[in-house]
Amino acid sequence: MSTKAPAIVLLSGGLDSATVLALAQSEGFEPLALSFRYGQRHAIELTAATKVAAAAGAREHLIIDIDLRVFGGSALTAEIAVPKDRDQAAEGGIPITYVPARNTIFLSYALALAEVRDAADVFIGVNAVDYSGYPDCRPAYIAAFEKMAALATRAGVEGRPVQIHTPLMRMTKDAIIARGLELGVDYGLTRSCYDPDEAGRACGRCDSCRLRLTAFAKLGLDDPAPYAGR
Amino acid sequence: MSTKAPAIVLLSGGLDSATVLALAQSEGFEPLALSFRYGQRHAIELTAATKVAAAAGAREHLIIDIDLRVFGGSALTAEIAVPKDRDQAAEGGIPITYVPARNTIFLSYALALAEVRDAADVFIGVNAVDYSGYPDCRPAYIAAFEKMAALATRAGVEGRPVQIHTPLMRMTKDAIIARGLELGVDYGLTRSCYDPDEAGRACGRCDSCRLRLTAFAKLGLDDPAPYAGR
Repeated sequence: MSTKAPAIVLLSGGLDSATVLALAQSEGFEPLALSFRYGQRHAIELTAATKVAAAAGAREHLIIDIDLRVFGGSALTAEIAVPKDRDQAAEGGIPITYVPARNTIFLSYALALAEVRDAADVFIGVNAVDYSGYPDCRPAYIAAFEKMAALATRAGVEGRPVQIHTPLMRMTKDAIIARGLELGVDYGLTRSCYDPDEAGRACGRCDSCRLRLTAFAKLGLDDPAPYAGR
Repeated sequence: MSTKAPAIVLLSGGLDSATVLALAQSEGFEPLALSFRYGQRHAIELTAATKVAAAAGAREHLIIDIDLRVFGGSALTAEIAVPKDRDQAAEGGIPITYVPARNTIFLSYALALAEVRDAADVFIGVNAVDYSGYPDCRPAYIAAFEKMAALATRAGVEGRPVQIHTPLMRMTKDAIIARGLELGVDYGLTRSCYDPDEAGRACGRCDSCRLRLTAFAKLGLDDPAPYAGR
């Protein structure tokens, strides 16, 4: 049995959450990885998450089915085209790729798992630098979730409220990558694209790909993940 | 098209949420009923919820699959015996029938649906009188959820935060039933038992049955729902 404290780590298969997993380990936690199958048009993210969890030696990797498609309302879950070659963040407002209440639903499941596994720590890779208009990636939102969680659960009532760790909150994408490389993260396993092809290759043109490619370029590095047309 | 404001109503098939649905209508809302299939040992609750929604003429009744069984840890989702002939509330502490973070998960989905359906109101039948040690039924918890929700969503950011209505919070069970009867609720359609038989008849002995039977008796009425051995 490990004597390390367990921590729930939300793992998407992307670059950010892979780094968060490594950071949780570097802080001495035993990570329990948690991913969601939420009506994405591609299972590629989850395949990536499974590889990332295995490479990190996570004790457990749970995948929860949640189907937001019954609700409709977002490019990431419904049949709306993902915007390409546009800087949505610069255009302002909340992007079309926003999924309603997504982080709230994800963190709620993490809270339940934390309680069942007797974990007092949850890690999530939200980021206020690349915020891009997602309301549920801001520090004020995370703080409010933490306060609610302290009142929601047996652990909170009994004096051991869950702490939500957001180690990437203030980091730029290139700083995230640099730190992950120090910790041995294999970014070739991660997938960030909103609209990969059937072979799992990134499009290189959506918001997520553009951010990622720019960050690797800034570090003078090649992104080891596969891109279509390269 | 109705000109009434839509409200998400969490509907379990039990006595309380059936009353909440009627109360939401009496306040002029157009209810969108939302139920969850969460690994219960009995589908009887959901059959009851469907009948209650239909009887009330709800515009929509969505059932979301969530599977807390992968987590384990509660009598209502795992294979642990439901306590009988004991007053858990009087024994103090959090009861074995507690489901980890359940209301947080339910309200998170309600928040997502509210955003997609452009609703600013969510109704939930939590009650602090029969609190029975459930942390996520207390007014402080609901207030904290509301604050978090205001920061979580596009609607909240754009100035129309969701309000969580808890009309039963301070009502005794007999007052809830009396009010529901005034509003025409058919309690014969509702099911409250933690451990019904295969025919859907209540056990009459679990915490939930005892509360309900006592309340009907207090009003000098027979509970119209079916009980085993009667």
